[in-house]
Amino acid sequence: MTLSPSVPEAGLDLMGFKDAVEELLTGFLDRKAPRADSSGSPDLAAPLRHFIGAGGKRIRPILAFVGWHAAGGTGDARTVCHLAASLELFHVFALIHDDVMDSSALRRGRPTVHRALALARQGDDSNIPAAAAARFGEGAAVLIGDLAMVWSDELLTDGGATPEQWAALWPVLHAMRYEIVLGQYLDLQATGTASPDVDRALRIGRYKTAKYTVERPLHLGALTAGADQVLLDRLSAFALPLGEAFQLRDDLLGVFGDPSSTGKSALEDLRDGKATVLTALALQAATPLQRKELTDWLGNPHLTHEQGASARHVIMATGAPAQVEEMITARYRTALKALDDALLPCAARQALHDIAQAVTQRTT
Amino acid sequence: MTLSPSVPEAGLDLMGFKDAVEELLTGFLDRKAPRADSSGSPDLAAPLRHFIGAGGKRIRPILAFVGWHAAGGTGDARTVCHLAASLELFHVFALIHDDVMDSSALRRGRPTVHRALALARQGDDSNIPAAAAARFGEGAAVLIGDLAMVWSDELLTDGGATPEQWAALWPVLHAMRYEIVLGQYLDLQATGTASPDVDRALRIGRYKTAKYTVERPLHLGALTAGADQVLLDRLSAFALPLGEAFQLRDDLLGVFGDPSSTGKSALEDLRDGKATVLTALALQAATPLQRKELTDWLGNPHLTHEQGASARHVIMATGAPAQVEEMITARYRTALKALDDALLPCAARQALHDIAQAVTQRTT
Repeated sequence: MTLSPSVPEAGLDLMGFKDAVEELLTGFLDRKAPRADSSGSPDLAAPLRHFIGAGGKRIRPILAFVGWHAAGGTGDARTVCHLAASLELFHVFALIHDDVMDSSALRRGRPTVHRALALARQGDDSNIPAAAAARFGEGAAVLIGDLAMVWSDELLTDGGATPEQWAALWPVLHAMRYEIVLGQYLDLQATGTASPDVDRALRIGRYKTAKYTVERPLHLGALTAGADQVLLDRLSAFALPLGEAFQLRDDLLGVFGDPSSTGKSALEDLRDGKATVLTALALQAATPLQRKELTDWLGNPHLTHEQGASARHVIMATGAPAQVEEMITARYRTALKALDDALLPCAARQALHDIAQAVTQRTT
Repeated sequence: MTLSPSVPEAGLDLMGFKDAVEELLTGFLDRKAPRADSSGSPDLAAPLRHFIGAGGKRIRPILAFVGWHAAGGTGDARTVCHLAASLELFHVFALIHDDVMDSSALRRGRPTVHRALALARQGDDSNIPAAAAARFGEGAAVLIGDLAMVWSDELLTDGGATPEQWAALWPVLHAMRYEIVLGQYLDLQATGTASPDVDRALRIGRYKTAKYTVERPLHLGALTAGADQVLLDRLSAFALPLGEAFQLRDDLLGVFGDPSSTGKSALEDLRDGKATVLTALALQAATPLQRKELTDWLGNPHLTHEQGASARHVIMATGAPAQVEEMITARYRTALKALDDALLPCAARQALHDIAQAVTQRTT
């Protein structure tokens, strides 16, 4: 995904802001390395540095920055930069725990944190049984994820927000954090119980993505610049359909994406039996035979590559991917329409336009 | 453990404060139940209400209250009460994740959160394989723990602290949260690798308990009332030895405690092969035969009740429990001496005296 690559005079310097967030994050994590004199303390920041270093779209930080501009933010970006870095580290927490829950092997093209920690443990002690190393890796990754959340608070509170900013930000931060946990919980509950229930899948995506990934970061940035409820509502009218489109694109990429671009296994969503709109629509449109096949395959942790290819073939044959593409397009258009109506500053509006295009058409 | 049962005119109303914290916590969690109109939203607060309702010593809230008084806090206790409730909910987060990592079955005499959620899942869907239900329970418990951390922040930021109080509290809160994660990580790393290394076991206990459970809550309470560094140092001189004694008592109770009092299994520490001072001393003093037996038993997840009894017998025969009792007594005395030297207000001093006695002599 490419977000407007460089800086026209009149535009927002998204890449400059992204770099500033990167610098803040890496500097913060570098300072968390244990001091030379504290022998015996493991470097708990190392897995987080590694994770951050593996890339990522930084969509939440960028949206916070655009939200700040949309509300008239200008000049000293220290507070919004800390907010943005904090959102990114909070997201790292969510991904690390998510990968443990889903038993994912790969993230951003590298072993997931629990896998890497299990492998390191086996490297330290070749006598340890594989199951014990895996168990250690999971427990250790839960703790590293916890630490990412702890440190996301530290980045946030180091940002020099005023009492007025805090009063506006905290309720939204608390709501956002609750929503992602709820979304993950609904997702976990639904996983392995593939069904034709499109509404259920949409509801999960609303919490997991539409609100958490798009609406809340925009709102938080805007609130940092003193946004009122009218502006927040306008941003929501853009953010929620776009966020749904983002999730629908994710669903397609999870099954049909190229692992060398997505950095994730192309079998995992199928093996987990993720309850997505894509699979719900496929089950709705399937013939009895196709439905039986899909029900056998979706959620089968031992699904082979060949069975995965067959599942993709059947899903394609049901027409579900084309339906999902249509849903993405409809939501993209709704988002752009809301953007046209929103009377935002030009530069913010242009940035959101570019972001909408990038997130709905991405391949990663 | 009984903490000064009622309220002499001159003393601190610890039980009144504990009740106020209880009321704040239960009111907060009650308000988190999904509204009647939000059908389909699970009540994620329910496991937390259940957990809080199962009791617990509330040692951290009480210490925050005493720290507040020690620094001259008086009158409106709203901020320290929110701080205390937040510390308790943060601790719930730590315990839920700890129980997942240790695969513990019981906590406070009830099934642990991941066990309860696995059982509920099997109740909802009798076709689900036991392993899948267990896996769901663990993932769901990680999320419920995450939510406890999220909500502990909400309780904290709802407490009406002033910018000056925040400036003093945040750095200590961040440090405390890092320390508990580090302590848990060291504990997890050492688990299953029982060794005669007493220093390692003491280091783990320092992070997990001495700082997290005793020193930091006292400091946070004191800072809420504007404490200076001199007072913080005096509180540390009391808190750190007492905290070590607390952990040593925990180690003894983990192996020799009565499950009907502790609410935990008496086999678990042995089965996990927890790296405690007790087992380190036992391995140091053991005969070659005893050392071989202990090495076989400690960390054996299939340890039987009979083998557990034999392990207890051998540990007793090495004299390690008596040594640990001596270490507890020495640290208790050091703590009381520090208390005598600390020039605290009488009521706070008396309360800390009582607490020191209670935590070193407890049976739960």
